[in-house]
Amino acid sequence: MSPPFDRVALIGIGLIGSSLARVLRREGLARHIAVHSRSEATRTKVRELGLADSLHATPEAAVAGADLVVICTPLSAYGDIAAAIAPHLKAGAILTDVGSVKQSVIRDVGPLVPAGVHLVPGHPVAGTEHSGPEAGFADLFRNRWCILTPPPGTDETAVNRVADMWRRCGMNVEIMEARHHDQVMAMTSHLPHLIAYTIVGTATDLEGHIDADVIKFAAGGFRDFTRIAASDPVMWRDIFLNNREAVLEMLGRLTEDLAALQRAIRWGEGEKLQELFTRTRAIRRSLIEAKQA
Amino acid sequence: MSPPFDRVALIGIGLIGSSLARVLRREGLARHIAVHSRSEATRTKVRELGLADSLHATPEAAVAGADLVVICTPLSAYGDIAAAIAPHLKAGAILTDVGSVKQSVIRDVGPLVPAGVHLVPGHPVAGTEHSGPEAGFADLFRNRWCILTPPPGTDETAVNRVADMWRRCGMNVEIMEARHHDQVMAMTSHLPHLIAYTIVGTATDLEGHIDADVIKFAAGGFRDFTRIAASDPVMWRDIFLNNREAVLEMLGRLTEDLAALQRAIRWGEGEKLQELFTRTRAIRRSLIEAKQA
Repeated sequence: MSPPFDRVALIGIGLIGSSLARVLRREGLARHIAVHSRSEATRTKVRELGLADSLHATPEAAVAGADLVVICTPLSAYGDIAAAIAPHLKAGAILTDVGSVKQSVIRDVGPLVPAGVHLVPGHPVAGTEHSGPEAGFADLFRNRWCILTPPPGTDETAVNRVADMWRRCGMNVEIMEARHHDQVMAMTSHLPHLIAYTIVGTATDLEGHIDADVIKFAAGGFRDFTRIAASDPVMWRDIFLNNREAVLEMLGRLTEDLAALQRAIRWGEGEKLQELFTRTRAIRRSLIEAKQA
Repeated sequence: MSPPFDRVALIGIGLIGSSLARVLRREGLARHIAVHSRSEATRTKVRELGLADSLHATPEAAVAGADLVVICTPLSAYGDIAAAIAPHLKAGAILTDVGSVKQSVIRDVGPLVPAGVHLVPGHPVAGTEHSGPEAGFADLFRNRWCILTPPPGTDETAVNRVADMWRRCGMNVEIMEARHHDQVMAMTSHLPHLIAYTIVGTATDLEGHIDADVIKFAAGGFRDFTRIAASDPVMWRDIFLNNREAVLEMLGRLTEDLAALQRAIRWGEGEKLQELFTRTRAIRRSLIEAKQA
């Protein structure tokens, strides 16, 4: 059986891009994997790791002749990349991405896509706190969700081909509106990261000997936050800047709830605390039942 | 070699108490382990698990003749327990505990301790989100820190015997002032739990289909928060009520920092975000170097 894609171009090859390269190869999903990284050090690393069939210093060279192009860079690079590759995209090619915000892709990339090329924005919801091509692994996507947010009128065959690729990478695929995606992710991913970054920052600003002790005695909960707050700084800067409205809305809700809890602690309202904590414990069970724990 | 303690009484036998029972037995640290639980169901479970040499329906029965008494209940029970056991404590006995707040122990238990009995408040900084005697395991304490906060003038031999016990359970022991302990824990443990409880509550209050999708797509960061927010509700209610001042102080600092970050997102100040995220990533490395990751 011939591979579903003849030539796949990966634009950017960090944690997600390199994991995709590995699983594309393992599952035989591409005859040729072309990789672009603008960094020579990264290209050398990718060569050593044997992740690419061809390596390219420019995105336009990588996409020449590709039937599938996957943008795997931080969101702030999307506009320039789209402008650079647009004239070089093959007729009928599919253009997708792996970014954590989806409305901004439609806004920044959509207008630059030539007629006859199919834009299928995508988001494999998977990751670790590590970055770079050496951090990727083929099983990163297994049993996780991939969300596709094709704008209305997108070619169905193109959507199905992208969905099929992610399924063969081990993912469950869900199709939804970009706006809904951005709201759900603001709550489940962007806000947790924002809070983790903040709390780790707050802790290490403490004066006296407390900051050293914060590291020493991190096992009581702080540790988990430091792991989340170790995620790629540029990628996350771009997520917050590109999903600003939804993040600020969810943050507003959180701040209200936090104020209510603060008041309950100040006034010693134990029942309120226990009621909330009992409710959140039940959520964990839902997650375990949904096999997402 | 005879065990360092003849008779150890565990008052309460949840995650921590049952883990201690297991490791005391494995390491041969007690000739006899007496356990009190006020719940008959728990006593039956402990009997099935074989964790105790004797089981007692009242704390005073458990402590009779004990040379070491370890309170392992939620903090709100400490006052009543201390009042009940005080007349039954053996002369020269050591009274310690495993609670996550230490000034409140000195405040609530200290005045009730009879002359000739040594109060050595303690906190093994270890745990999981699971509760109950079946959730414990002997290796829970391995390579973690145990903090002791003996009030000035406490008998040194008593402190050393408690420290030695925790070391033989695999822990590193640190002695500090109760007030400093409560501040460090407010930041490293109590605040992270408070935030996790809040964010999980906020997420599940969302209207429309978002709340179901929050469970479905939890892999992006939210998952870690649900695990923390699954911790024992009564234990955590008591921690916040008993470490109110330090928690409110640290929460105030966090709220300020969060407001600054909110502003940076609203005004698109990417450098500020990236600077913070780069700094917090370095913290994670400190933690890995300190072997607390």
